[in-house]
Amino acid sequence: MPTYRLVVEYDGTDFHGFQYQPQLRTVAGVLEGALCSLFHSEIPVAAAGRTDAGVHATGQVVSFKAAKEFPGERLSLALNATLPPDVSVREGGIAPPGFSARFDAYERIYEYLILNRAMPSAVLRRWTHHVHRPLDEAELARIGRAMVGTHDFLAFCGVTPEFGGTVRTVNAFDVEREGDIVRIRIAGEGFLHRMVRIAIGTAIEIATGRRHEDMATIIASRDRQRAGYTAPAEGLFLAGVRYADFETYWRPGIAYVGG
Amino acid sequence: MPTYRLVVEYDGTDFHGFQYQPQLRTVAGVLEGALCSLFHSEIPVAAAGRTDAGVHATGQVVSFKAAKEFPGERLSLALNATLPPDVSVREGGIAPPGFSARFDAYERIYEYLILNRAMPSAVLRRWTHHVHRPLDEAELARIGRAMVGTHDFLAFCGVTPEFGGTVRTVNAFDVEREGDIVRIRIAGEGFLHRMVRIAIGTAIEIATGRRHEDMATIIASRDRQRAGYTAPAEGLFLAGVRYADFETYWRPGIAYVGG
Repeated sequence: MPTYRLVVEYDGTDFHGFQYQPQLRTVAGVLEGALCSLFHSEIPVAAAGRTDAGVHATGQVVSFKAAKEFPGERLSLALNATLPPDVSVREGGIAPPGFSARFDAYERIYEYLILNRAMPSAVLRRWTHHVHRPLDEAELARIGRAMVGTHDFLAFCGVTPEFGGTVRTVNAFDVEREGDIVRIRIAGEGFLHRMVRIAIGTAIEIATGRRHEDMATIIASRDRQRAGYTAPAEGLFLAGVRYADFETYWRPGIAYVGG
Repeated sequence: MPTYRLVVEYDGTDFHGFQYQPQLRTVAGVLEGALCSLFHSEIPVAAAGRTDAGVHATGQVVSFKAAKEFPGERLSLALNATLPPDVSVREGGIAPPGFSARFDAYERIYEYLILNRAMPSAVLRRWTHHVHRPLDEAELARIGRAMVGTHDFLAFCGVTPEFGGTVRTVNAFDVEREGDIVRIRIAGEGFLHRMVRIAIGTAIEIATGRRHEDMATIIASRDRQRAGYTAPAEGLFLAGVRYADFETYWRPGIAYVGG
């Protein structure tokens, strides 16, 4: 029974997140529906990142086992013909036996887009968080750097996990500006529920002078009350995932070059 | 009574076009509603381009007269606070007396985005037309160049106008590729109803070998039946408008830089 993997892109706006939930429209539900009509059997999928409601993906990786053999390109085309327009398969193929998109991933790369100017944008609103106060990208990068390393991130945790604790390792927190867009890239082995968005909300509050503790002190406090707001889902993309034999990275971004 | 002008951006997906239509959600209807709640009177707006249902704008220009004086920045912020998220004012201010966004414009710049690869894209679907057959951008530019100049464009006309005839002047037809995105820029004094989209559909059919007449012959025929399909609205943006004393241009685009 071959194991498949897919690189999947989605517009998270109209989904209640990745994970299957009865009665709700989820990315897993839609993918499993398409796999069912293709393979004529119920096929559960595993994903590198179980993204929340409203979060997008450009480089999500999904794995599943199925009885039939399908060449990768044909599988992708057949799935895209069945999937709704807000989910698409970028590539698909047979993975090494026993491959798990979830358990074999050693790094997840999330990117967060902020529209940083006075005026909102009708076209960008679906993909960015609008922050009207000026953000200094070097300052934001300096603040975020306190996350890099292995820490107990309980302060940035939405729902305390039942298993596995709240210690995580963050590999990078980078910030760049492209015109009015500030892009934050956070990479790590794995993240707690809402951790990326709470960290970004906290960093924005510190950078704009609305929160006076520094990031390292907030992390050390292990107190969710001392961290900032949860930055909204629409700015967040799961952009890439790394495995020993395979990696994906598709930079999300909407470039406005004004004149 | 001061004349105002606004630079307006919108996501056309959920609008029945720009022009006011009773019972339907239009950009003009939404703008006039916001102006009414701000100025407490009915204020009709004029626009540089009366975009069709589903067409977007990054650089639309709108003008109106109102009794009250408002500083430009305050006007924009007040309107943005009232407008729905899929329309936004990028800037606003007082225009020279008698300014008309519609009649004073001497050039409109439309841009059309094509996603040109085998696989569709969930994130880009709202802003691009998916063409899976390979397009050669130099060939597309060569084909489109036949439009430049003053011609009778009846062959590219959706609905024959009652007034004004079907002769128009096209100033430029440029094509560039950015990864999987092919961008077409068409500039001209004005365009017939659906002219830009029919011209692009025709150029795509010629470039992909599905139509064997050349563009100049099709234009000269003045026969809509000999032209191609109407390229879908979601790829089209009104990007800029030029006036004697003022111009706007905001390049729409979604940049995916893969790796």
